[in-house]
Amino acid sequence: MSSAQVGIIMGSQSDLNIMEEAAKFLKSVGITYEINIISAHRAPDVLADWVRSARERGMKVIIAGAGGAAHLPGVTAAFTTLPVIGVPVRSRISIDGWDSILSILQMPSGVPVATVALDAAKNAGILAAQIIGTADESIAEKLDDFKVEMRQKVLDSAKELRDKGH
Amino acid sequence: MSSAQVGIIMGSQSDLNIMEEAAKFLKSVGITYEINIISAHRAPDVLADWVRSARERGMKVIIAGAGGAAHLPGVTAAFTTLPVIGVPVRSRISIDGWDSILSILQMPSGVPVATVALDAAKNAGILAAQIIGTADESIAEKLDDFKVEMRQKVLDSAKELRDKGH
Amino acid sequence: MSSAQVGIIMGSQSDLNIMEEAAKFLKSVGITYEINIISAHRAPDVLADWVRSARERGMKVIIAGAGGAAHLPGVTAAFTTLPVIGVPVRSRISIDGWDSILSILQMPSGVPVATVALDAAKNAGILAAQIIGTADESIAEKLDDFKVEMRQKVLDSAKELRDKGH
Amino acid sequence: MSSAQVGIIMGSQSDLNIMEEAAKFLKSVGITYEINIISAHRAPDVLADWVRSARERGMKVIIAGAGGAAHLPGVTAAFTTLPVIGVPVRSRISIDGWDSILSILQMPSGVPVATVALDAAKNAGILAAQIIGTADESIAEKLDDFKVEMRQKVLDSAKELRDKGH
Amino acid sequence: MSSAQVGIIMGSQSDLNIMEEAAKFLKSVGITYEINIISAHRAPDVLADWVRSARERGMKVIIAGAGGAAHLPGVTAAFTTLPVIGVPVRSRISIDGWDSILSILQMPSGVPVATVALDAAKNAGILAAQIIGTADESIAEKLDDFKVEMRQKVLDSAKELRDKGH
Amino acid sequence: MSSAQVGIIMGSQSDLNIMEEAAKFLKSVGITYEINIISAHRAPDVLADWVRSARERGMKVIIAGAGGAAHLPGVTAAFTTLPVIGVPVRSRISIDGWDSILSILQMPSGVPVATVALDAAKNAGILAAQIIGTADESIAEKLDDFKVEMRQKVLDSAKELRDKGH
Amino acid sequence: MSSAQVGIIMGSQSDLNIMEEAAKFLKSVGITYEINIISAHRAPDVLADWVRSARERGMKVIIAGAGGAAHLPGVTAAFTTLPVIGVPVRSRISIDGWDSILSILQMPSGVPVATVALDAAKNAGILAAQIIGTADESIAEKLDDFKVEMRQKVLDSAKELRDKGH
Amino acid sequence: MSSAQVGIIMGSQSDLNIMEEAAKFLKSVGITYEINIISAHRAPDVLADWVRSARERGMKVIIAGAGGAAHLPGVTAAFTTLPVIGVPVRSRISIDGWDSILSILQMPSGVPVATVALDAAKNAGILAAQIIGTADESIAEKLDDFKVEMRQKVLDSAKELRDKGH
Repeated sequence: MSSAQVGIIMGSQSDLNIMEEAAKFLKSVGITYEINIISAHRAPDVLADWVRSARERGMKVIIAGAGGAAHLPGVTAAFTTLPVIGVPVRSRISIDGWDSILSILQMPSGVPVATVALDAAKNAGILAAQIIGTADESIAEKLDDFKVEMRQKVLDSAKELRDKGH
Repeated sequence: MSSAQVGIIMGSQSDLNIMEEAAKFLKSVGITYEINIISAHRAPDVLADWVRSARERGMKVIIAGAGGAAHLPGVTAAFTTLPVIGVPVRSRISIDGWDSILSILQMPSGVPVATVALDAAKNAGILAAQIIGTADESIAEKLDDFKVEMRQKVLDSAKELRDKGH
Repeated sequence: MSSAQVGIIMGSQSDLNIMEEAAKFLKSVGITYEINIISAHRAPDVLADWVRSARERGMKVIIAGAGGAAHLPGVTAAFTTLPVIGVPVRSRISIDGWDSILSILQMPSGVPVATVALDAAKNAGILAAQIIGTADESIAEKLDDFKVEMRQKVLDSAKELRDKGH
Repeated sequence: MSSAQVGIIMGSQSDLNIMEEAAKFLKSVGITYEINIISAHRAPDVLADWVRSARERGMKVIIAGAGGAAHLPGVTAAFTTLPVIGVPVRSRISIDGWDSILSILQMPSGVPVATVALDAAKNAGILAAQIIGTADESIAEKLDDFKVEMRQKVLDSAKELRDKGH
Repeated sequence: MSSAQVGIIMGSQSDLNIMEEAAKFLKSVGITYEINIISAHRAPDVLADWVRSARERGMKVIIAGAGGAAHLPGVTAAFTTLPVIGVPVRSRISIDGWDSILSILQMPSGVPVATVALDAAKNAGILAAQIIGTADESIAEKLDDFKVEMRQKVLDSAKELRDKGH
Repeated sequence: MSSAQVGIIMGSQSDLNIMEEAAKFLKSVGITYEINIISAHRAPDVLADWVRSARERGMKVIIAGAGGAAHLPGVTAAFTTLPVIGVPVRSRISIDGWDSILSILQMPSGVPVATVALDAAKNAGILAAQIIGTADESIAEKLDDFKVEMRQKVLDSAKELRDKGH
Repeated sequence: MSSAQVGIIMGSQSDLNIMEEAAKFLKSVGITYEINIISAHRAPDVLADWVRSARERGMKVIIAGAGGAAHLPGVTAAFTTLPVIGVPVRSRISIDGWDSILSILQMPSGVPVATVALDAAKNAGILAAQIIGTADESIAEKLDDFKVEMRQKVLDSAKELRDKGH
Repeated sequence: MSSAQVGIIMGSQSDLNIMEEAAKFLKSVGITYEINIISAHRAPDVLADWVRSARERGMKVIIAGAGGAAHLPGVTAAFTTLPVIGVPVRSRISIDGWDSILSILQMPSGVPVATVALDAAKNAGILAAQIIGTADESIAEKLDDFKVEMRQKVLDSAKELRDKGH
């Protein structure tokens, strides 16, 4: 039995290098996660079982990445009332990502998927942390620190540019 | 137990006026069918049961219509090796039909959906008949007759235009 | 000082009839909310103040709706580490909603916006409830009840169709 | 006289490396096929003759691949009542495949083409097998086996990922 | 036997109100024409016969209008070396005209179709007259007159606006 | 003074490798042509002079290639009643060719441009020859020969494929 | 001789109701303007003369509105070094405004057009005032006042909403 | 305190190689500028301070470049009545530039951004110079010289082509 707070799933191993960015961020703020390959089209029963038991297993958020006619996030959302974050992947079959975006974003009324930008698995990880941070102050603080660091990085970039004499 | 040769399914009653065109054509060539409202997102277990038992119940083709992030045809195809025909519907939520088309058409390798034009449920009915007609000569003959009639109608249109003096 | 759990904001009164759907859902599950008109382009300082103090005021989720070059959700996300849900609105200026979707969805790394479908404010409300439900069991239970009701409605639709003799 | 069950046609030799995937799948399940280069625009009379006699020659399904203003599948469907599967090819002239998809998918009422995803010739082969499998149990069984294998592969991928310690 | 200089064809009577604009312009400059309903998908043999004999019958240009997966102009061009002008029609089935445009414009190398704007049958008529005017000076003069009139109309509009006090 | 029958113009030298294909075809059928770099945006007066005198100089058709906000073909058509063929070029600035296509194709009523496919300068050359062939039988015959050769090439391709044992 | 500071031009009277919004704003801040109908395609010589003499006549900014293959702003920019503001108009011929936007926005290097949103003539007027305001302090102050008013309006909207009890 | 006439800002160092083209042009005509990295999403308070004080610091025009959900130009325009020129950048995250274009171009009424073509930072520099040139005759003269040079270059290209014997 997993005790992960976030489940990261994808339909195929080829999406792993994209989806790992979500895991890296979660690790950096100390949130436990589980990465899994589960296909909505090739092993739908496994998906159904995994999703239905997610809340009981202590999971709080599910991140699902998929490309082309990307059904994994939406089908996941059909089986749970946990928040599901969808990552549209610009995979080999995809038409510049348009199919991935539209099949994840345009969910019918009653079954939302929280969609992030194309290939934006890191943002999916941050969003999962923000969701957990709504009830966990230590995570909220780490997110504030992360925001401060991002701000500092952009200020450093600006300073470096000025120092170069632009 | 249904003895229909073709199952016509859709996720919501609002698609019925589009999807009925498939039924009308099947009726006109004497193919039995069953129309059903089954949602991939709202009642996924019912869909799984219905599709998994379709071949045993004597079904030969499934026609699935959906709009927006249209997962019904693809999820249906995940549960069966019967040919699944997808009808992208330009529903209220849809962005001019682009989301409906792309989420039905762009299926991953291994799980095809035979997609027809936007709102083209009649063509889905004809295609289902063509599939049944590959092994049923009487249906094939009816399809040939239908083709002859279509040809005649366009010739009649042309004649009418000439008679009007164009 | 507001004690709302969810803040619903939009840049113009013309988006109110869309965005009210989020409020209706939240009300139905007993989540407190605040609706506000705040413009990222016309009163950016007011927005900054409102968002920066949101967490302190007890807010857990912000829902922001906008159309055209829709900057409200993204600028909101710049000022907070609370989860921000973006609702792309197909407003009068919008090009079929494409501009609204892309300017909300395609956020840069580090600053996610949880985007829902075009005009899908009700789904934004459900997603906000799911987020709150990750730490509030009574909300999670209400969401489970809502899912059961949705399932029942689609089964009733199906039954009604069969009863009509289709 | 050909005794192939499936005809695979394309307008130009440059589409052969894509379209061969259909042939490979058909071969793997023991369905006979014929590959041919026939152009709707450069040798329309040859196409008409080939298609018109297809049913008599024992053919059951035609797979037609084309790119750009892709007329081959639609013109094929004009000459037969056999099911025609269209494969939109992202060829050199094509605008990211959009022209290929729309000129194959959006057929007028009365003349359907069963369209599959961009470059998805393998799925076209599977769909052809599914069509033949509606009346040929041994093919249906092979398709079931193929589905089981696909399922197993995705489960193996998942196991491999877990074994690597993710 | 027709002695028309320009053949205007369309696949369905529903395109007639658009395509008549071509005829009106041709009439206004004294070019003979013939309007015909001929379908590439429903009566392909009739189309082939009509096009193949067009040059012999004295025809100089063919104008073909179609919508959706619009194959009529391209299939016409397959059967003749006369210039073929294609008019993409925003018909009921069409997705805002994109399918009509792309299936007419993106013809493969060797078989051009001279495409005009969406629904621009009048421009197709003018282009046909320009083609005939390359060898017929009286037509060229009438086209010059038409250009002078257009110029005058826009100058009159400008004057009217100034007179209104803008 | 040029005695060319066809003028081929483009706004920048970078389009030359595309536009030369038109020249090659014209040369192959013995039609005289002139290639020129003339910019609608950088030397509009030169363009106006060149186009206005084209008919007098014996020109019969103008082929204009351009990319991005491609105004050259349309501005050319503003100054002449000769047929103008537009070649949308997928240049470096262009957004996958969409801007090039739409700014050439969608001309207002009264001023047509005969648009061919993206980068299809060879088809522009063929179309120019077809226009000249409406009044020049020797050109018409050469176009018929070209069509026969194209047909033969596709038949040879097909034979070669069969010989390889497919 | 005009003494207007801003020239507002459009190709056809049908764009007047859109383009008047620019005039209204300019009037409200006391900037003189001239509205004119001048067509790049129907009276190109008139356009050239009008634009070339604009700076001498005291003009500081030109606003040009057009739809479809919208060449007016770009051709205007070819004849002057004054800033040219382009307003893409969603006119009757236009494909949802995409052609209008792309043919105005995607100008080649060296010849910019300052493009505003679809149908956004009021914003074109504001931008023209901002340009004049870079050297005219009284205009700059009026623009600051306008910004304050906009801010107040949105605050009033927000207050009104709160007063209604939301 | 800066005394630059033009401020060039971008959200990330990765846009620098594009945005430098604006600086190069400004330098070539003797306009002072300042390049800065300022992020609307990562350091919004810094942006607000920098923009609000721009006019006082003597700035006349701001050029802002951004990609994806590109909010920098629009948020800049929210804080100033100086003209803001937006450069949509086809950055790594961007979907072929469509998101960049639409989130910059489609600004709401009251807050214009003068948008130039994708990646067209040089044109942004020229446009800034044209704006300054409305009140500075020496800049206007330099722009006229630049136009003459561009014209000469295209004439030289044409001559070179003729000399090569085309």
